[in-house]
Amino acid sequence: MKIFDIPGFPNPLRIRIVLAEKNLASQIEFIKVDLPAAEHKQAAFLAINPTGTVPVLQLDDGTYISECTAITEYLDNLDGNPVLTGKSPKEKALVHMMQKRAESELIDAVGIYFHHATPGLGPALQAYKSPDWEGRREWGERSRDKAVAGMRYFDKVLTAQPYVAGESFSMADITVWAGLVFAGFANIRVPEECTALLNWRQTIDERSSVKNPA
Amino acid sequence: MKIFDIPGFPNPLRIRIVLAEKNLASQIEFIKVDLPAAEHKQAAFLAINPTGTVPVLQLDDGTYISECTAITEYLDNLDGNPVLTGKSPKEKALVHMMQKRAESELIDAVGIYFHHATPGLGPALQAYKSPDWEGRREWGERSRDKAVAGMRYFDKVLTAQPYVAGESFSMADITVWAGLVFAGFANIRVPEECTALLNWRQTIDERSSVKNPA
Ligand SMILES: N[C@@H](CCC(=O)N[C@@H](CS)C(=O)NCC(=O)O)C(=O)O
Ligand SMILES: N[C@@H](CCC(=O)N[C@@H](CS)C(=O)NCC(=O)O)C(=O)O
Repeated sequence: MKIFDIPGFPNPLRIRIVLAEKNLASQIEFIKVDLPAAEHKQAAFLAINPTGTVPVLQLDDGTYISECTAITEYLDNLDGNPVLTGKSPKEKALVHMMQKRAESELIDAVGIYFHHATPGLGPALQAYKSPDWEGRREWGERSRDKAVAGMRYFDKVLTAQPYVAGESFSMADITVWAGLVFAGFANIRVPEECTALLNWRQTIDERSSVKNPA
Repeated sequence: MKIFDIPGFPNPLRIRIVLAEKNLASQIEFIKVDLPAAEHKQAAFLAINPTGTVPVLQLDDGTYISECTAITEYLDNLDGNPVLTGKSPKEKALVHMMQKRAESELIDAVGIYFHHATPGLGPALQAYKSPDWEGRREWGERSRDKAVAGMRYFDKVLTAQPYVAGESFSMADITVWAGLVFAGFANIRVPEECTALLNWRQTIDERSSVKNPA
């Protein structure tokens, strides 16, 4: 299998952690996409993923899978033992609910702030991500506030249970963790009173797949 | 099980179609949430779904599940025969990839237009959805353009295959269909050259679960 991504970036990291969790790293050939140069907004890459984001997984039969949720479903189910996406209907539902919240309330909200209210990855990409329009800075800042509200929400969740979707580590933890990494990169601080979130972050930082992603 | 929603609205419809597909309608008690009055933005409802949207499924053990993707995973897997969310790893991946695209490129984009660039569901809700800020109309209109680009994308997909995620009907078809219903409601027209999308729409309109949702 191949993965098109760029090392160290938050969404690619999500999948590199999944690969480490599932012991699949050795089966992947990585192909680097030059994000700051906007390579992912050019026709060749858009043919692979019309949404113009990384990571993208290419299966051995040639099929392209984009979206971390979809890629994780694939990789987690390959061995018939889904440990990251839930086994029972209720587990699957809780993981997907928290996964979606981790995206909309945190990692995607940070991304909107980063690409609209800051210089983002620089001028080549900015022309695609945030063409000049009046409200873009304000929109970005509203999105930063949403991300901080998201942090407070996950703090509350983690006061009541050890992991984002319940009693065990799941894809939703990976997404919240990557959201915090991205927030750090964008200089959005976790409010210090979010102690449950900050403690959970330390635990996840120490996890082997997170210390040594693919 | 209980579902908190409001009949006829696009996201609630997604789940009512799932219930009809899975023959589960008789097991559900529906509880109406007054969206135009912003009931879903008040503390009682936010305790059920902090994201403040419908539909929400309540399981018999009391657990609340929000997000259509999560609710569909639950309902589709209850009988051990997931026909809407994929069986093999590759099917699951394709369904989730197209589901996410149907949300971000279509139904959610229509929602942003509707709630920011039009009067939406009226003043009571608008105070929560789109407080007065300079760029909100422009942001809404950019989102409408994104939704139309999304229609063109799904048209291309449906030129090559009968259903949104491949050879069979899935949750991604339900989401694209609901996105077109919402677009119609918001007066966003499908470009007439999108003949594959328009033909697919007619086929889906005739489907029994879509003609007679729960
Ligand atoms: N929803 C997507 C998000 C992917 C995403 O936003 N990736 C970032 C890299 S961290 C990206 O491609 N950013 C560049 C851009 O949006 O132009 C997923 O789950 O894969
Ligand atoms: N991503 C959510 C979207 C739900 C959603 O936006 N529902 C609409 C009703 S069609 C809603 O609650 N709108 C009112 C609001 O956002 O305030 C899901 O999949 O359930």
